Amino acid sequence: MAGPSFQALPGFRDFIPRECAVRNYLFETWRSVARRCGYVEYESPILEDTALYLKKSGGELSAQLFRFEDQGGRDVTLRPEVTASLARLVAQHQRDFPKPLKWFEIGQCFRYEKPQKGRGREFHQFNVDIIGEGGPAADAELIALAIETMLAFGFVAGDFVVRASDRHAWIEFASRHGVAEEAIPDFLNIVDKIEREKPEVLAQKLAAFSLSTAQVREFIAEPANASPAYLAIRDDLSARGFGDFIELDLSIVRGLAYYTGVVFEIFDSKKSMRAVAGGGRYDTLVATISDGAVDLPASGFAMGDYVIRNLIEETTHAAVRMEVWLQRNAAACDVFVVVADECKRPEALKLVTDLRRAGISADLSLTPAKVAKQFQSAEKSRARFALVVGTEYPELKLKILASRTEESGNAESAVDWLTDRLQQPDGPLLA
Amino acid sequence: MAGPSFQALPGFRDFIPRECAVRNYLFETWRSVARRCGYVEYESPILEDTALYLKKSGGELSAQLFRFEDQGGRDVTLRPEVTASLARLVAQHQRDFPKPLKWFEIGQCFRYEKPQKGRGREFHQFNVDIIGEGGPAADAELIALAIETMLAFGFVAGDFVVRASDRHAWIEFASRHGVAEEAIPDFLNIVDKIEREKPEVLAQKLAAFSLSTAQVREFIAEPANASPAYLAIRDDLSARGFGDFIELDLSIVRGLAYYTGVVFEIFDSKKSMRAVAGGGRYDTLVATISDGAVDLPASGFAMGDYVIRNLIEETTHAAVRMEVWLQRNAAACDVFVVVADECKRPEALKLVTDLRRAGISADLSLTPAKVAKQFQSAEKSRARFALVVGTEYPELKLKILASRTEESGNAESAVDWLTDRLQQPDGPLLA
Repeated sequence: MAGPSFQALPGFRDFIPRECAVRNYLFETWRSVARRCGYVEYESPILEDTALYLKKSGGELSAQLFRFEDQGGRDVTLRPEVTASLARLVAQHQRDFPKPLKWFEIGQCFRYEKPQKGRGREFHQFNVDIIGEGGPAADAELIALAIETMLAFGFVAGDFVVRASDRHAWIEFASRHGVAEEAIPDFLNIVDKIEREKPEVLAQKLAAFSLSTAQVREFIAEPANASPAYLAIRDDLSARGFGDFIELDLSIVRGLAYYTGVVFEIFDSKKSMRAVAGGGRYDTLVATISDGAVDLPASGFAMGDYVIRNLIEETTHAAVRMEVWLQRNAAACDVFVVVADECKRPEALKLVTDLRRAGISADLSLTPAKVAKQFQSAEKSRARFALVVGTEYPELKLKILASRTEESGNAESAVDWLTDRLQQPDGPLLA
Repeated sequence: MAGPSFQALPGFRDFIPRECAVRNYLFETWRSVARRCGYVEYESPILEDTALYLKKSGGELSAQLFRFEDQGGRDVTLRPEVTASLARLVAQHQRDFPKPLKWFEIGQCFRYEKPQKGRGREFHQFNVDIIGEGGPAADAELIALAIETMLAFGFVAGDFVVRASDRHAWIEFASRHGVAEEAIPDFLNIVDKIEREKPEVLAQKLAAFSLSTAQVREFIAEPANASPAYLAIRDDLSARGFGDFIELDLSIVRGLAYYTGVVFEIFDSKKSMRAVAGGGRYDTLVATISDGAVDLPASGFAMGDYVIRNLIEETTHAAVRMEVWLQRNAAACDVFVVVADECKRPEALKLVTDLRRAGISADLSLTPAKVAKQFQSAEKSRARFALVVGTEYPELKLKILASRTEESGNAESAVDWLTDRLQQPDGPLLA
């Protein structure tokens, strides 16, 4: 087609109504699960001082920044993730809150990457963190929330698995094999890429640490290398009935430099997609960000909107659940007022206003139109009812659009009538 | 205090939980009013091609952009407003929707301005538009929604007023006084600043058009200069019972260059603040943005989050309504599970999980703590109930925290028990 002159930037999405409804489905599910697990919501700025990210994330993230100089000469960046901002907020405000803080956030992040399936240059993220509690109970509580979230989307046992590991196990392994402390971050980066790296490159990189690929693979394969924290988390999740959802996977170390202990990722069981969610413990970040002014242990995870949506759409029972929600939320209004006699438009306007005030979603045709056309508009808006205002006003006719049946009522009592009517099912009641 | 090293950028806000709850109150109110008036939600990207804004807004907006070059060499801008993006979306997707489109959006915008009371460098906006309907009925429907929104926040007649005007009236006035067509935008800019400009500067600027301040003021003061569209809108709003909320004010022309007809702003009655909301008709913007590929009349308005919040907080009945909502949403959980015997922690974890699954907001102390300390945590979380799991498990004790009364129950039926209990009032029932 001869396209219009402007398009969204590559990797940026337009949320037309159906897309926006999908987004809202994700947001509402995230928000309701977080709330029933006792987390409170916060939000941080989308634009931050670039130094906030350079200081802590390290690695590839710093190459992917939407970074620029603002009109005041500040070096600023569209946030690539939220944890650095959270650490900043917590360092500033933690005194006002009892510990541990259980906080969540739903917002947009930006990374300059090659747009592809499951990845854009902007994405929404569900960020959940527990701050001020250093033990594995906090990690377990977070993983439990991640599992609850998957269940809320309609996934069941067998659809997904939480793969957990502990950087402490790797740090011990590295020390035991003579890797210098300052070289450990580099070593962890090699382990992080073990599944994606070419074998010969991997062998070469490990050789620099006097290690072989076999040694590393052997360590990963040995269940006895599970850390005490991992075992405590597994027991905690088992008590909750979530034991089957968690697996030890020492190949997981996570890319960001700031993780300090337990780390985990959620995958679809076929591992056909990127991780649905990932997180872990970052006990030193708050101190780093606050220059040591505040020192609080922390653990958290994030779930992006791209992969979870793909997984929902490819998993029938989750897709059906979303579709039901979308259908239920697709109607532009519940009651469409049909103006059968233009002389009665003022009365129709008043009626629409009264219905809306009572919390009923109501609409009407803004311009004179044939009654048949107005009924079409009612159908297109997916309204349940068409309420006809005609010459016989204040008598009104109510057409039930699904069953094509009709009732009568009076304008005087229209609000009560429609309120009551909307609470009843449409069809004839079963005997 | 010795501050932490990082702060939010000037003009950018951290939404710690209470601030985030206020934001959510505004968002939920906006969203629910828009839905019950038959509008559907969309969202556009926060980052756009800069040309999208240079092409249409004109004037001071282009000096306030967060504008930069991305890693791909594109000239991009953090959106200063949403209407340009909406016009782009509509031009691309309008074929898929029946007309008129009634669309709304809630999102963040960015302008590099001097931060001050009622204005930051980022703000949230409620954007509402009707596209594809050129008559005054659409303008009235929009203004009705703006009024509904104010009523939903608890404002009443006398708190605020919609001041409306029509650029057509000014265009006629200008033509009648020999202002050249191409000079009309400049002339409208002068009228827009009439209340803020120094008298001598104003007189000088008008003299360039062979006009005097007195002539312009006289035109503004004369009710007979109301345009037919204004009169139709007033009649429409009167039919809805909103006649008292609208006033003719020809001094309103709005700053943005793209307005073509009716324009309006909402002010607090004392006019002690900037406009709470503003908008108008922009019949040529979709064609401009799409290089003539799509030509649809349009009308819309936006309400920012800064001024409305200030006005709510300074208006007792609106402030009380918000506070009630905030209190109702302030609890981190409904049920706090107290682990009185650490041997029963696995049972407590299972109980919390079952309650959450049933949609009940539940939490517990993540680490062993004295029972008194756990009750303190329960109070701090603002839970209604503390559910005690102790040696006598599966027997449970339920403490009602407000009344300090106690009930007993069994773990087996805890979900039903608590579900039922949460639906009842806390105190003793009145006789």
